[in-house]
Amino acid sequence: MFAPRPSDVDRHEVILGVDPGLTRCGFAALHARGATIDVVAMGVLTSPSDMDLAERLAMLHGDFESLLKEVRPHAVAVERVFFQSNVSTAMSVAQASGVVLALAASRGIPVVQYSPSQVKSAVAGSGNADKLAVQKMVQRRLSLSSLPEPADASDAAAIALCHIAASPLATRVGAAQGVTK
Amino acid sequence: MFAPRPSDVDRHEVILGVDPGLTRCGFAALHARGATIDVVAMGVLTSPSDMDLAERLAMLHGDFESLLKEVRPHAVAVERVFFQSNVSTAMSVAQASGVVLALAASRGIPVVQYSPSQVKSAVAGSGNADKLAVQKMVQRRLSLSSLPEPADASDAAAIALCHIAASPLATRVGAAQGVTK
Repeated sequence: MFAPRPSDVDRHEVILGVDPGLTRCGFAALHARGATIDVVAMGVLTSPSDMDLAERLAMLHGDFESLLKEVRPHAVAVERVFFQSNVSTAMSVAQASGVVLALAASRGIPVVQYSPSQVKSAVAGSGNADKLAVQKMVQRRLSLSSLPEPADASDAAAIALCHIAASPLATRVGAAQGVTK
Repeated sequence: MFAPRPSDVDRHEVILGVDPGLTRCGFAALHARGATIDVVAMGVLTSPSDMDLAERLAMLHGDFESLLKEVRPHAVAVERVFFQSNVSTAMSVAQASGVVLALAASRGIPVVQYSPSQVKSAVAGSGNADKLAVQKMVQRRLSLSSLPEPADASDAAAIALCHIAASPLATRVGAAQGVTK
């Protein structure tokens, strides 16, 4: 699924994958040039769990804005948030995703969301792939010497790889518009 | 509950109440000076429901940022979001609240959240008060000639009134810090 298309080889772009969260917001900026994909930046934005909620969201807002300015992505791929068993966590994840989506779109950057199963399917070949299988594929695809850590950064890289695999490079950025509904 | 305290009479402040939402985000900026409360601005921020989610959040982000600059509130009171029956709506409400909380705190404005029952209890005397009872109390408290409309703006005014009622003016702004957890 990562085979280069002849017309893609001379084109390049930076895709920022984001696994939204308030305690840990994973990010991975990947530079894709044809079949070659390099890591530009990869890590986790954090905020102290004993800090006031609004202050934590403001911290994420500032940190993510700085990241966008630094990385200047051509598109931002964000994991779609679902309501899970832990309602309290789901709420803060939804609030964090709101901040991330709003900031990226505010800067005119195309934003696309992918569900966890879409990401697993694109990266590891199955929507039911386990975390380790996804991490191993991310490691292999990015030619990393060890498993990508922490998990949230690895997930963000998988989301960016999903976007790179999901859309032909030539139309990737334009097509990302309007897919986040 | 709105009786003036002697020490409050010469003090004044602007409280911005917000009922977060993506389709309709109600707001009401109230100027309180002792027992006198005037409406500075009241209305609803909207975004088209057929627009891309990230674009809608970006629109709310820009509109709410402009509102904060225009109104320059001393504190922002936001209705606390809960997961309700409509999961799809709850998600976008949570995302919208994330944007609102992050922007207010980013500007260094104290932010406080109140639950719907806290608002009803403070404004209409009962946590189970119906919407009409709350609207009538908002109308009376703000000396409006008719029931406040639309409902989201009225709700936002109730949230601001709740904050004004809940904390003595002298300590209101300072105490708002750290209450949004």
